[in-house]
Amino acid sequence: MTNLPPLDFRSDTVTKPDEQMRTAMANAEVGDDVLDHDPTMRALEDRVAGLLGTESALWVPSGSMGNLIALFLHLRKGDRFLAPLGAHVLEAELGTAAWIAGGMPHPMDWDAGPGRMSAAAIHEVAANEAPYDGLRTTLLCIENTHNAAGGAVLPLDAHVQLVAAARECRLKVHLDGARLWNAAAALGVAPTELTVGVDTVQVCLSKGLGAPVGSVVAGSAEFVAEARRVRKMLGGGVRQGGVLAAAGLVALDRIDTIGEDHVNARTLAAGLTELGWSVREPDTNIVLAAVPDVRNTIKGLARLGILTTPIAGQVRFVTHRDAGAGDVKEALHRISSAS
Amino acid sequence: MTNLPPLDFRSDTVTKPDEQMRTAMANAEVGDDVLDHDPTMRALEDRVAGLLGTESALWVPSGSMGNLIALFLHLRKGDRFLAPLGAHVLEAELGTAAWIAGGMPHPMDWDAGPGRMSAAAIHEVAANEAPYDGLRTTLLCIENTHNAAGGAVLPLDAHVQLVAAARECRLKVHLDGARLWNAAAALGVAPTELTVGVDTVQVCLSKGLGAPVGSVVAGSAEFVAEARRVRKMLGGGVRQGGVLAAAGLVALDRIDTIGEDHVNARTLAAGLTELGWSVREPDTNIVLAAVPDVRNTIKGLARLGILTTPIAGQVRFVTHRDAGAGDVKEALHRISSAS
Amino acid sequence: MTNLPPLDFRSDTVTKPDEQMRTAMANAEVGDDVLDHDPTMRALEDRVAGLLGTESALWVPSGSMGNLIALFLHLRKGDRFLAPLGAHVLEAELGTAAWIAGGMPHPMDWDAGPGRMSAAAIHEVAANEAPYDGLRTTLLCIENTHNAAGGAVLPLDAHVQLVAAARECRLKVHLDGARLWNAAAALGVAPTELTVGVDTVQVCLSKGLGAPVGSVVAGSAEFVAEARRVRKMLGGGVRQGGVLAAAGLVALDRIDTIGEDHVNARTLAAGLTELGWSVREPDTNIVLAAVPDVRNTIKGLARLGILTTPIAGQVRFVTHRDAGAGDVKEALHRISSAS
Amino acid sequence: MTNLPPLDFRSDTVTKPDEQMRTAMANAEVGDDVLDHDPTMRALEDRVAGLLGTESALWVPSGSMGNLIALFLHLRKGDRFLAPLGAHVLEAELGTAAWIAGGMPHPMDWDAGPGRMSAAAIHEVAANEAPYDGLRTTLLCIENTHNAAGGAVLPLDAHVQLVAAARECRLKVHLDGARLWNAAAALGVAPTELTVGVDTVQVCLSKGLGAPVGSVVAGSAEFVAEARRVRKMLGGGVRQGGVLAAAGLVALDRIDTIGEDHVNARTLAAGLTELGWSVREPDTNIVLAAVPDVRNTIKGLARLGILTTPIAGQVRFVTHRDAGAGDVKEALHRISSAS
Repeated sequence: MTNLPPLDFRSDTVTKPDEQMRTAMANAEVGDDVLDHDPTMRALEDRVAGLLGTESALWVPSGSMGNLIALFLHLRKGDRFLAPLGAHVLEAELGTAAWIAGGMPHPMDWDAGPGRMSAAAIHEVAANEAPYDGLRTTLLCIENTHNAAGGAVLPLDAHVQLVAAARECRLKVHLDGARLWNAAAALGVAPTELTVGVDTVQVCLSKGLGAPVGSVVAGSAEFVAEARRVRKMLGGGVRQGGVLAAAGLVALDRIDTIGEDHVNARTLAAGLTELGWSVREPDTNIVLAAVPDVRNTIKGLARLGILTTPIAGQVRFVTHRDAGAGDVKEALHRISSAS
Repeated sequence: MTNLPPLDFRSDTVTKPDEQMRTAMANAEVGDDVLDHDPTMRALEDRVAGLLGTESALWVPSGSMGNLIALFLHLRKGDRFLAPLGAHVLEAELGTAAWIAGGMPHPMDWDAGPGRMSAAAIHEVAANEAPYDGLRTTLLCIENTHNAAGGAVLPLDAHVQLVAAARECRLKVHLDGARLWNAAAALGVAPTELTVGVDTVQVCLSKGLGAPVGSVVAGSAEFVAEARRVRKMLGGGVRQGGVLAAAGLVALDRIDTIGEDHVNARTLAAGLTELGWSVREPDTNIVLAAVPDVRNTIKGLARLGILTTPIAGQVRFVTHRDAGAGDVKEALHRISSAS
Repeated sequence: MTNLPPLDFRSDTVTKPDEQMRTAMANAEVGDDVLDHDPTMRALEDRVAGLLGTESALWVPSGSMGNLIALFLHLRKGDRFLAPLGAHVLEAELGTAAWIAGGMPHPMDWDAGPGRMSAAAIHEVAANEAPYDGLRTTLLCIENTHNAAGGAVLPLDAHVQLVAAARECRLKVHLDGARLWNAAAALGVAPTELTVGVDTVQVCLSKGLGAPVGSVVAGSAEFVAEARRVRKMLGGGVRQGGVLAAAGLVALDRIDTIGEDHVNARTLAAGLTELGWSVREPDTNIVLAAVPDVRNTIKGLARLGILTTPIAGQVRFVTHRDAGAGDVKEALHRISSAS
Repeated sequence: MTNLPPLDFRSDTVTKPDEQMRTAMANAEVGDDVLDHDPTMRALEDRVAGLLGTESALWVPSGSMGNLIALFLHLRKGDRFLAPLGAHVLEAELGTAAWIAGGMPHPMDWDAGPGRMSAAAIHEVAANEAPYDGLRTTLLCIENTHNAAGGAVLPLDAHVQLVAAARECRLKVHLDGARLWNAAAALGVAPTELTVGVDTVQVCLSKGLGAPVGSVVAGSAEFVAEARRVRKMLGGGVRQGGVLAAAGLVALDRIDTIGEDHVNARTLAAGLTELGWSVREPDTNIVLAAVPDVRNTIKGLARLGILTTPIAGQVRFVTHRDAGAGDVKEALHRISSAS
């Protein structure tokens, strides 16, 4: 059975550039983006800043670097930051929030729903007046959608409450919006509504949008000027990056189609439920299945040509441009046949 | 009422050296402990290594430095370490476990009792086989007694289970034993029984034992050789430290009397309970009282000349050599009279 | 005069991808290089490993990241490393060798020629047997060609002597070979002859070779496995990087043409000398001019449409694929006419 | 000959506390200096601030920690600092200026005399206008007296010029004054004259002054408030430190006698010169002898019971309270007899 054509639900990062994107890359106008500015890079950065409602924006090779730059600039050594349990900055960035950015992470329970803390919980931790020798809490990280919570959306009112609580406790706010486009689509709002009150935000071009490489970190002009410097420190400055930015610009034209992935994820979830799996109704494009033995389930699915990954003790399926309605149908068929 | 003589329950660190200790300091034989070895320092270090059952030991100016040195040597950058919620390394060392030692903290719920995680919880987190790009969990920190859990003792069988789980997950184990003497006294065992299976341990000379300055970090000879180097890095190498070590040696003669603090803490807890306070029966020398308004309660007590501190959302009373049976009685009297 | 077409001698990084390269990018086979491996990335990495005679190799977004990864993996905190004065790792990477890699830099005088130290100097510094509390010297960085020394080549015999000295002092060796292709061309040897005895080497695809983005860091398979992890830490892991790797593969086909840049640089140097400038005969593609007022000279040249940069108190001209014989001739003409 | 009574010229740190100092320690009034303030500590800190002409001061366990705290607070990551070749912060603090303080060191040649750079050299390096991606030079470290330059004094006019150059280049200034008392004595000026224009200064109590443990770092009140926090981070906060501060207060009464060490050093240097050694006339209490084989010379001296250390490729003799005129005479006698 292993020679069945693979259905790749491992991540929305596996999407490959299509012809239109490749043509755009081949024709991109470029410059040296370390020395001065690559014109296509600049066009991309300006467009993302516009979409997010920030003053400025900076391309980075990965979302990990975007988050790291933001945390590095927000935190002094010995500062504590809050992030929901399972957040990418806590679990998937190899501890750089701690040893490069210099922060002391404080994971927050999901007391207000999947992937999110309550405003009250922020107050409880951060209002703690530290003496001279105590941790100073200075930053709140939120993640919308929250990957380890199964692509859970942080709704508008919750966003507003969390940002307000952060302000009252004099915390800065960084939004890990790697899948912010998904959140906006699910809520039917403009991305700018989900960045209200945040200091910085990171969004990804290579997940649901399908660009081959790149994320963007955005904020004030002052932040971006320093972020450019930190990007250089980390080795993320590139030369004729316009070839990648051109793909990013094409990807941004596709924001409106991202909702299809959500439809497909709901179809997948419903089908799995019918087949007796324990699956939560997905908010967006991520389906988490609770199974007794994650590792063996993933192996069994792989034997059916269905590729998935483990996350937070569950099996994760991600729908995306290259794993659409047909692949969902076929996957359900294979699982059903194999039972 | 503010001119009542103060009853200082803020911490067992406030104890002052008595005449015997001062005389020992004045007569200490000394050397240059950075260049070679101070003889009194060496005697102290040898004696503590003996008490803890480790190959070697090193004096450090503070428990914070002892913990930091151990974490620094156990962790590579990007390694994750486990510690119970509220642990000193998480809350009270200004994030140095993260930004100097380079570790990514993973706070563990108290699923097995006050201040401690279960062996199962360790397995769940650490057995997670990380791919090349995931956090590697490499260290378990335990704290015995656990300060923020009200001086809770980690019993022998729990210790054995946690260490066994750590071994099975190939984690090293560091024991923050700032109050290990209290744990041993409460359990009626030798301290060596509480260091079985750990790689490193830090103990304090200036809490219940009453020395003015100093802690000791202990482990293998190889560990201590490197620890001496890291102590120099952090600026903790001192010259004629024998004057302090002499006080430490006197302090170690008093291990057997530390149980008196526990009796006094139980008396205090019982008295407070009688007065209607919500207080947990203490394992050792720390009494935590749950009150609606921590800050104002502490202020109110201070007006009665009763000094306490806030911890983990409660009011903390600590009994010690300079806050004994008489002070406990007087404190209860003042509170009772003021009610 | 400012509307003269610009002659861009600022850096060989300004080269733009040509049609062949763009076509290769548009047609590249790709995969998710973070999850598993992008096939074109793998082909590029294998080819570079072959060219350098190393076991393995890893693509990185920039030479700065390649150097940083190597230093990070070679150094423990508190280790000292040696590098020639003006080295890229000392001057042009924003101190990350110190605060991320954790090393203490020790700049070495150019006592053996432009851009290089003698073997004797290495022995003098590194043979210093440090006591337990002294700096341990553990790494030698060399740079071939040496940018701030005007693209100076480290000849084969000097290379052999430095590597031997490093071995005798038990130092590892990292070669910053951002312009190693130039060194090999100038010496008429294979690049493998210039990597003999080194532990790791970084080479650039986007300088003389003309790829838009990317460098490669190479060494043992064990090194590269860890380097992949560190690249992820720093945020340098990319998804469908094959589009960039495809350009890199085309660039590598052009190694043999890099000598033309050297001919053009010598022509430029000769011409400037004739015009009375104080210029050293270039080894490769970099011409340094010593002038009384660097800033104003650069401004004056810019008014003639001739773009240059300051380095090490001199004016730097770099020849490259997009600044060839015609541009050199035109530049000399403009300078001559303006005098 | 090895059973000759030792003459310990290794360092002025080997001095042992005398009776007066020990009595002071035994009688010191103490408090908990982490929780609030130890009264004897406070008296010591106030007195040193007065002696140095700074607003405030903070006791630290070692000069290394004092320097590290200052650098940590002055530098952002990626900042470059200047220090004379051989400076303690460069050579003797295990690289913490780089990996903890986060700075990129730039060692400065001694172009203006032993142990010091010229004002012109500062201008040349620091005036370099870095582009967005270049190192920012933000701090000048000076060392007075300069240990590796043989206790060389930085004269008043040189001090003034260096500080002025730093101001013109907008650099902060940290003075490593571990032996500032020696510099002041040699110049016949008050220490306050040698701190004019500096932001922070570190002085040692345990070298020539003879206290067993401790240094002081001083600066503005704002600096000291933050320094107290960083001291806690590094593990340098101590509890009843008054026992050490009491010794420090006695030591400060002896500043005026430190000149005797200089007389003895000159006698030693003259004697060695007469015996054919190559010795520079000492400014203060350190005598450096240039010998063909440092290691064997030190071993040979040790066989005569004369203890010395290697530094900067020379043999170092240090005179101090416990190695005075009699020891110098005896050492010269032994060397002369053994020739």
